[in-house]
Amino acid sequence: MADKSQIQEALKVQGELVRKLKAEKANKDQIDEEVAKLLELKARLGGDDGKQTFVLKTPKGTRDYNPKQMAIREKVFSIIISCFKRHNAVTIDTPVFELKETLTGKYGEDSKLIYDLKDQGGELLSLRYDLTVPFARYLAMNKITNIKRYHIAKVYRRDNPAMTRGRYREFYQCDFDIAGQYDPMMPDAECLRIVYEILSELDLGDFRIKVNDRRILDGLFAVCGVPEEKFRTICSTVDKLDKLPWEDVKNEIVNEKGLSEEVAHQIGEYVSMQGGLDLAEKLLKDPKLSQNEQALAGLTDMKLLFSYLQLLQITDKVVFDLSLARGLDYYTGVIYEAVLCQALQPEVPAVKEQKGAGDEAGVNVGSVAGGGRYDGLVGMFDPKGRKVPCVGVSIGIERIFSIMEQKAEMSAEKIRTTETQVLVASAQKNLLDQRYQLITELWTAGIKAEMLLKKNPKLLNQLQHCEEMGIPLVAILGEQEIKTGVVKLRNVATREEVDVSRENVVEEIKRRTLNI
Amino acid sequence: MADKSQIQEALKVQGELVRKLKAEKANKDQIDEEVAKLLELKARLGGDDGKQTFVLKTPKGTRDYNPKQMAIREKVFSIIISCFKRHNAVTIDTPVFELKETLTGKYGEDSKLIYDLKDQGGELLSLRYDLTVPFARYLAMNKITNIKRYHIAKVYRRDNPAMTRGRYREFYQCDFDIAGQYDPMMPDAECLRIVYEILSELDLGDFRIKVNDRRILDGLFAVCGVPEEKFRTICSTVDKLDKLPWEDVKNEIVNEKGLSEEVAHQIGEYVSMQGGLDLAEKLLKDPKLSQNEQALAGLTDMKLLFSYLQLLQITDKVVFDLSLARGLDYYTGVIYEAVLCQALQPEVPAVKEQKGAGDEAGVNVGSVAGGGRYDGLVGMFDPKGRKVPCVGVSIGIERIFSIMEQKAEMSAEKIRTTETQVLVASAQKNLLDQRYQLITELWTAGIKAEMLLKKNPKLLNQLQHCEEMGIPLVAILGEQEIKTGVVKLRNVATREEVDVSRENVVEEIKRRTLNI
Repeated sequence: MADKSQIQEALKVQGELVRKLKAEKANKDQIDEEVAKLLELKARLGGDDGKQTFVLKTPKGTRDYNPKQMAIREKVFSIIISCFKRHNAVTIDTPVFELKETLTGKYGEDSKLIYDLKDQGGELLSLRYDLTVPFARYLAMNKITNIKRYHIAKVYRRDNPAMTRGRYREFYQCDFDIAGQYDPMMPDAECLRIVYEILSELDLGDFRIKVNDRRILDGLFAVCGVPEEKFRTICSTVDKLDKLPWEDVKNEIVNEKGLSEEVAHQIGEYVSMQGGLDLAEKLLKDPKLSQNEQALAGLTDMKLLFSYLQLLQITDKVVFDLSLARGLDYYTGVIYEAVLCQALQPEVPAVKEQKGAGDEAGVNVGSVAGGGRYDGLVGMFDPKGRKVPCVGVSIGIERIFSIMEQKAEMSAEKIRTTETQVLVASAQKNLLDQRYQLITELWTAGIKAEMLLKKNPKLLNQLQHCEEMGIPLVAILGEQEIKTGVVKLRNVATREEVDVSRENVVEEIKRRTLNI
Repeated sequence: MADKSQIQEALKVQGELVRKLKAEKANKDQIDEEVAKLLELKARLGGDDGKQTFVLKTPKGTRDYNPKQMAIREKVFSIIISCFKRHNAVTIDTPVFELKETLTGKYGEDSKLIYDLKDQGGELLSLRYDLTVPFARYLAMNKITNIKRYHIAKVYRRDNPAMTRGRYREFYQCDFDIAGQYDPMMPDAECLRIVYEILSELDLGDFRIKVNDRRILDGLFAVCGVPEEKFRTICSTVDKLDKLPWEDVKNEIVNEKGLSEEVAHQIGEYVSMQGGLDLAEKLLKDPKLSQNEQALAGLTDMKLLFSYLQLLQITDKVVFDLSLARGLDYYTGVIYEAVLCQALQPEVPAVKEQKGAGDEAGVNVGSVAGGGRYDGLVGMFDPKGRKVPCVGVSIGIERIFSIMEQKAEMSAEKIRTTETQVLVASAQKNLLDQRYQLITELWTAGIKAEMLLKKNPKLLNQLQHCEEMGIPLVAILGEQEIKTGVVKLRNVATREEVDVSRENVVEEIKRRTLNI
């Protein structure tokens, strides 16, 4: 640990920086991050007594979820899981760490972002980086050739966090995949339908699902004269089109990747195309593309895919977009990405505005789901190299959480963090036995009931607690009521009160709380 | 990696060992573990082509959950979470790793079991060892003095796994805690009621909840003449009484811990006592114990606790047992542990038989929940040492999973891994469009519907799929039906069929699947 004077010095410098950024009205994200550093330094310095204590914080890039955030998280999960179950998915779970060698060679350059565990004797382990590689390992290990599964779990990347934008080092992935040999484009179409259903139900505003095919991209690179060994790197450059204007992308192709102006121009012509079934049909007649085997296969499948999407009634949201490339190496066919047309807050520019504007953090803030076909990955794990074709989608759940949190903050509606239906209250002192008896009956009947954990709470405090926690009903036990054999039921919202006989009160509470 | 001949040699030796164990009809656990090692060696040797591949396995002490296990896990969680919610708990989540210093000094000798992350630059991190320390860190960090929360998440211990007995290196904890200043014994009583409700609803057979108090133990050690600095170590020895007979425990007290025969005898007299409210009252009149301040406080609280447990109607399962000590250092008051009276399988001896019999692995296999009061832990994290009194319970969920899995295996009832309500089938070829149209309507109506992802599946295959997956209903589209504007609904179990008009079919399916 640094000594106290060093920390004090750092604290001074950091304080200046924050004041300067605030004065300059800098980007909110940037200010938040510098303030966080300031607070960390303050914590290191310890309490008022100058006693140096340990830092009370979560690790960099991680966060706790408080009860309100958990309520939002559970609501989002419940919508997504319902959709996965509606589409007959099973679920599996895998350990949070894998053998290091299981992850080796799967993520290219990003391997440096993998968290390794310390060698404490025994196997070398790493935290999972995504859910797709563990899924492929699971299929190969159990010789499963056929499964439709979802998996929601946390993954780990030693990336630069931008937490206010929903980018963490520990974050949820929410994956749905169909593995197995089926008729062409049928699993792919279902994945797109699932994205459509989830985004519609989450009610995040209008969205578009961009679709393309790796084979179409490879084919168009070939016919434009890109040498085969440059397909992947040109693909990465084209992938930047959602953040950079064509001019910048073209410069990179010409100046960094060393292709001619003419080749770049031809690529530009193609990747500016957007459409649907019509575009697939048009390109199938393109004299150059249709001669390329890869492109032909991709376009034929694209046409078939759109015919299914029409039957699935989702073509109003799906766009065949030749500029969509997706970063990951392992895709072999259809790829897709869902973007929100309009984000919620001014800090989060709408996707259209954002096009052509640089995004420092390198995230497409509008992207909320993505996926594609990866027919080769499972074979990498099988001792005999047996392939299991797969197609899947990953819902960008952290991004969705932050939108929902923002929405909740702006909304007047209070989020309940408990589901308590009734508070068992007492009007006078010395009624603890009666409270315990009634609440025991309620719990036994499966009713969500609470009583304050005090022997003699004041009635006013008990009623206030209901207001604060959003508990809709109070069952009040009082001396008078006990004498006449009744319990007073009070509706917290309307303040209406009614006396119910003690022996019927559990049934009556059950009846009243049925739909809460 | 070892070279091929070394592995082949090891494989031979291991094969011999497994054959020997099987011939000797050795313990099933032991055979399973040796077979696992054998399979690992085989995997290392690679495929038939002799090509050496990486090991296809999960890390030592971890497992995947397959869809069936997930179905069981979700059922158990759902029962437990319902109970926590019925008792007005909120939920929180914390990161899977903490700063290493957050865990330092909390687990005594067990610290060696903590998984550390590799130092890759930045903070030093460790995987969480339990949920209690992160909870205390969360309370102190957010200055929360009052919360009733549950937290279900995985924790990590580099222990010797005994996976067939539900002991893993990655395992779930399932914690409910009440933090805050309340009237004496009220939160404690609610924790016990929660254990009672959960074990009753899980239907694991008869159980007992043993209760004691650290202050009573300390008091009785004092009046028996144990020097104060030996309280904790004698406490650990007494804790072994659920696995060892009194003679062994006494020997340890005398020979290893260096106390006199007479002191050991007096301890033995006390710790053999079991009872309820009556025992608390009796001990309050004990001339020696009642003179000890600690014991007096503990016994007074125990009497109060039992009076509340009577009102909560759970005294039939709760035993005041002076031999209960619990391992953890941080308990300061009431402690408790729930045990199953009769375990399910012969490998898992019933608790009564087990008493007095050594358990190699050192686990009380009957224990399914435990907890207690820890009033000092949060203060360890607060810069000013402010205390937040806490009491909590941890449900031994992994043990419960294995019992439920065993139960499911023995039962004839098939576990469904999906919730699909209806299969959209076709009786002839070329009806894909119609299938897509109907299933789209069903999904839009929120019905869990499936169709085979083939253009022209055979009707027999579609019906067989329903049998296998337990799908209760089939909607059959056929040429004849389409002509007459109907859909055939088939009940898979009864094989009854009925024609429903195409425009009403979604409503009719909804009606029929309402309670599935």
